[in-house]
Amino acid sequence: MSDIVIRPATTDDLVAIVAMLADDPLGAAREDLDHPQTYAAAFARVSADPGQHLVVADRDGRAVGTLQLSVIPGISRRGATRTIIEGVRVAREERGSGLGTELITWAVDESRRLGATLVQLTSDASRTDARRFYERLGFVASHVGFKLQLD
Amino acid sequence: MSDIVIRPATTDDLVAIVAMLADDPLGAAREDLDHPQTYAAAFARVSADPGQHLVVADRDGRAVGTLQLSVIPGISRRGATRTIIEGVRVAREERGSGLGTELITWAVDESRRLGATLVQLTSDASRTDARRFYERLGFVASHVGFKLQLD
Repeated sequence: MSDIVIRPATTDDLVAIVAMLADDPLGAAREDLDHPQTYAAAFARVSADPGQHLVVADRDGRAVGTLQLSVIPGISRRGATRTIIEGVRVAREERGSGLGTELITWAVDESRRLGATLVQLTSDASRTDARRFYERLGFVASHVGFKLQLD
Repeated sequence: MSDIVIRPATTDDLVAIVAMLADDPLGAAREDLDHPQTYAAAFARVSADPGQHLVVADRDGRAVGTLQLSVIPGISRRGATRTIIEGVRVAREERGSGLGTELITWAVDESRRLGATLVQLTSDASRTDARRFYERLGFVASHVGFKLQLD
């Protein structure tokens, strides 16, 4: 297998990113592949924000994994800067290859490089495999994650 | 009782904010009131980031509540922008007054105004009262929140 490179996403990766977000038990109902302009506008917002790091795992020029790392400076925990990982996806044909571990390890290393002292993420409680995955990587499932959908 | 105004925090509020963060069963062990310069540097980082909205609830010029609202543009959920609420605190003498509800309601309204379609937060699983509080405000405890402390 050829090597993986984790690099910033470009607009050329957007179709592959959205396809990965949708190819998921929960994501399938949430995404709408018929409206590429909605995603293009979102990509522009993400790109314009220096606190957002949207990356892809690239194999031979193809995006086969993705995540978004957000940097949040704060006052609590002695002025800790934290990062938040969202939108982690691995392409179907790459699942079980260790690419998820590679992506999260990258995000943790990058968080440290960015000056963060805490990395956090939430995972839908129905994703039982995800819990084992993150715990194996050292994350502690100490919190309850709440969401409020706005109309 | 006089009226509460929720307004952006200034450096003049920082001592009160840190005191509120520390006056908490979990926060007590995490903060270090002997190093104000650490918090001053953190406040500068938060203030310089247009995605961060650190506010206080002001009663007669005194900060008696605080929270930080972070805006995160993203690709998933049809290009949803989400907000994250962190560091919610109410001064001891104001607890039970409804000020927590006022702060969260402000954050939800502000999230909508900022174009977000999702508000999220995590709460330590040991804060059982917090769970009831957020559920009463419409939040759904659908996720597990993971944290990784970096050395």
